[in-house]
Amino acid sequence: MAGNGLCKPREIVMRYLIYLSILIFTVSCSNASSTSEAIKPSKEEKYNWRLVTSWPKNYPGLGMAPERIADLVEEMSDGQMTITVYGAEEQVPAFGVFDAVSSGSHQMGHSGGYFWKGKVPAAQFFTSVPFGLTADEINAWVNRGGGLELWREIYAPFNIYPIPAGNTGTQMFGWFNKEINSLEDIKGLKMRIPGIGGEVLKEAGGIPVTLPGGELFTALQTGVIDATEWVGPYNDLTFGFHQAAKYYYYPGWHEPGPMLELLINIDAWNSLPNHLQVIIETATKAVNQDMLDEYLAKNNQALTELIEVHGVELRKLPDDVIEEFRKISNKILDDLAKEDEVISKVYDSYLKFKNNVSAYHQISEDAFVESRNK
Amino acid sequence: MAGNGLCKPREIVMRYLIYLSILIFTVSCSNASSTSEAIKPSKEEKYNWRLVTSWPKNYPGLGMAPERIADLVEEMSDGQMTITVYGAEEQVPAFGVFDAVSSGSHQMGHSGGYFWKGKVPAAQFFTSVPFGLTADEINAWVNRGGGLELWREIYAPFNIYPIPAGNTGTQMFGWFNKEINSLEDIKGLKMRIPGIGGEVLKEAGGIPVTLPGGELFTALQTGVIDATEWVGPYNDLTFGFHQAAKYYYYPGWHEPGPMLELLINIDAWNSLPNHLQVIIETATKAVNQDMLDEYLAKNNQALTELIEVHGVELRKLPDDVIEEFRKISNKILDDLAKEDEVISKVYDSYLKFKNNVSAYHQISEDAFVESRNK
Repeated sequence: MAGNGLCKPREIVMRYLIYLSILIFTVSCSNASSTSEAIKPSKEEKYNWRLVTSWPKNYPGLGMAPERIADLVEEMSDGQMTITVYGAEEQVPAFGVFDAVSSGSHQMGHSGGYFWKGKVPAAQFFTSVPFGLTADEINAWVNRGGGLELWREIYAPFNIYPIPAGNTGTQMFGWFNKEINSLEDIKGLKMRIPGIGGEVLKEAGGIPVTLPGGELFTALQTGVIDATEWVGPYNDLTFGFHQAAKYYYYPGWHEPGPMLELLINIDAWNSLPNHLQVIIETATKAVNQDMLDEYLAKNNQALTELIEVHGVELRKLPDDVIEEFRKISNKILDDLAKEDEVISKVYDSYLKFKNNVSAYHQISEDAFVESRNK
Repeated sequence: MAGNGLCKPREIVMRYLIYLSILIFTVSCSNASSTSEAIKPSKEEKYNWRLVTSWPKNYPGLGMAPERIADLVEEMSDGQMTITVYGAEEQVPAFGVFDAVSSGSHQMGHSGGYFWKGKVPAAQFFTSVPFGLTADEINAWVNRGGGLELWREIYAPFNIYPIPAGNTGTQMFGWFNKEINSLEDIKGLKMRIPGIGGEVLKEAGGIPVTLPGGELFTALQTGVIDATEWVGPYNDLTFGFHQAAKYYYYPGWHEPGPMLELLINIDAWNSLPNHLQVIIETATKAVNQDMLDEYLAKNNQALTELIEVHGVELRKLPDDVIEEFRKISNKILDDLAKEDEVISKVYDSYLKFKNNVSAYHQISEDAFVESRNK
């Protein structure tokens, strides 16, 4: 999975100019900003905040999470706080969310940490890394295993306070017009796959491509790419990938349980009275689970439709290909951790938790599921 | 897992007399009850509610969930609503929670639905049944697959509104002083195991026993029972079972992902203004995830300590024993569903969701975990 809206160079310049104009306009015209009350939070004052996202407005799953957070906050605060949610490109580009919240032009954002790997490489561990933590495991690491403290520490220099805000569950490897029967079939494969997953593909001889979600269907249909990953059946069905590709491969080794994030400008956060802070944290925690519930309930139905109605061929990646990907992934992550002390500290905490929790899962949920399926 | 506090017959009579006295006293003396405002909820009125539980006060995991719900509600409502949490036996017996909330003597309760199987047999599906749904799967069924609507429908005649309120994750099969090498070893085995799990053991030739948690250690040590299940490493370590039994068996086929419940008296619920209702629902949803995070993070550490420090022998149940348990479980559940229309409707919804979600999990999270562990 990756955000909609990756751009070509000329578009990027254009969009950033628009974004800059909006930013200047917003800062100069802002009179509803609550940062002016930073010194003395009021229990009665009304707060009208703006939230920018990396997703199309009301996009199923990903895009609905911030809408639900906004609804819950307004209801729980009995109208004291409202949050207006903007889709990608409405006020800032899909990948301008981090900067918008950091600068304070917008109090809130909803996105995925691995989009900021250029600025904060360690942020990737709080979304998903290849062969990493599943949804339950990353929840446990972040909320109860020391992860959240590290996450807040690494975002603090950017004046951002992060809260875990949704998970898609294990994704699919994606849509292919070429069969993958061995490592040889990876050589020269042009696939849309961002982040560390893309680096792994490259190391195995493939050609990773970055394209926005909205361009994937045409690129796949015209043969510009041989394959693409996106999210999973529920989201993939709406994009109609089954009309442009033949094989649907699993497992999603590259994104086992990506956690989304709510970003809050720290000055804006400090301006809130305590009860509104707890309302935001709790609403977001509830939505973190709700998104996973939604994907899990809907992925079922969508996969059945893809196979039974649209004749999609479901394929498993060959074992030797997965094994090679795993070896390369581990090397890339080990090398990344050597880059600086911060990444090393986060990776160390992540890896220790992963080793423990995966050992425990083997004798609890995994062993149970095996016994149920026999 | 089962609640602390199962009683011998004479004790039950005594406890119910005490409970009845408290009930009469409470109803006659109640002046803080909010049910009197049922007609016109006030936005300003203070609400001071009482919550009874089936767990010892502040018991790790299970007992901390209602405490956290109470804290969140007080903070989010900025003190408008407070909830006082009582441990089992403080105001009503562990298994008197459902009746206390139903009668309105207490506005809220925290417990597990399978304790009420005598009154509401279908309630068991909303906690856990053998070879049933895991934690993520039951969340998805209840919140996004039609389960919650059914649950509320079957509790409504008892004047109770349920909200999902925590999950322990897959439990362990438990502590044994006899090795289980074949089905023969189940014959005559005296094991503390409640609910449908106990019925399965009986059908396989074992002798299921019901005892409160606090009596398990002594019963195991003195040979009154040969084995006991409880929860998992985090809770089991605190009870010291490793000092009374030799083998620790998995997987927990009988409780793959038990969901706990917050029970609310419907008249009390209707007396609340909307923002407090949303605050309670959202706090409980956040705690539902928090409990699973806690168990997942702590079970790791506890299991390692049990094995490395206390020399516990971790054992897997033989395949043929699991297979026999699965066959018996399916038959018992099928027979149960034939008892009446309500159970049949719930079981039908549960089974359809289980078949779909387990098929999907096989090609997503399960396939991923397999590829990670190789």
